[in-house]
Amino acid sequence: MVKLIALYRRPDDPAAFDRHYAEVHTPLVRKMPGLQALTVVKLNDLPGMSTPYYLLAEMTFADQEALNQAMRSEAGRAAAKDLQQFAGGLVDMMVGEEFTAAR
Amino acid sequence: MVKLIALYRRPDDPAAFDRHYAEVHTPLVRKMPGLQALTVVKLNDLPGMSTPYYLLAEMTFADQEALNQAMRSEAGRAAAKDLQQFAGGLVDMMVGEEFTAAR
Repeated sequence: MVKLIALYRRPDDPAAFDRHYAEVHTPLVRKMPGLQALTVVKLNDLPGMSTPYYLLAEMTFADQEALNQAMRSEAGRAAAKDLQQFAGGLVDMMVGEEFTAAR
Repeated sequence: MVKLIALYRRPDDPAAFDRHYAEVHTPLVRKMPGLQALTVVKLNDLPGMSTPYYLLAEMTFADQEALNQAMRSEAGRAAAKDLQQFAGGLVDMMVGEEFTAAR
């Protein structure tokens, strides 16, 4: 299982960000072929520890090849283009492999 | 559902970090009362986008009160102390609420 992870820093206008994220960006992401799950977490500070981050989105694919295909697809390119336009300066992207930590 | 999220930057000695994380830190985290799930994701760069991050750990609790109790517990304090010692300079902590993005 491979995850495409988008970590967004706090936008200047959270309401406008939320609206674009829900109404434009999420529908584009959901069109990516092979997407098994989309999990979105709204972030807050822990008491005494401030975080610059606002939103964590995780997109799950079966494996690296499925993720590569999704990113190369028309839907994947449309989602990437939208991302650059509305949050290019806010987002860190990374790829993750989930593992179960040993006890 | 509330998530306690730990985001670690790349350590100088990943092998030593992995060993401590698996053998010492994870068992402490698993002792926290009310912990419903622990998900750990090893992070890599996307082609052409470098990330400073190495590991993303998500600890799921029923709600904010359950998380507060876990962090105040003896196990929670032991896990926090260990975290400061082995990765205090590497980790960003945050709290997240999962939501389903509108279509």
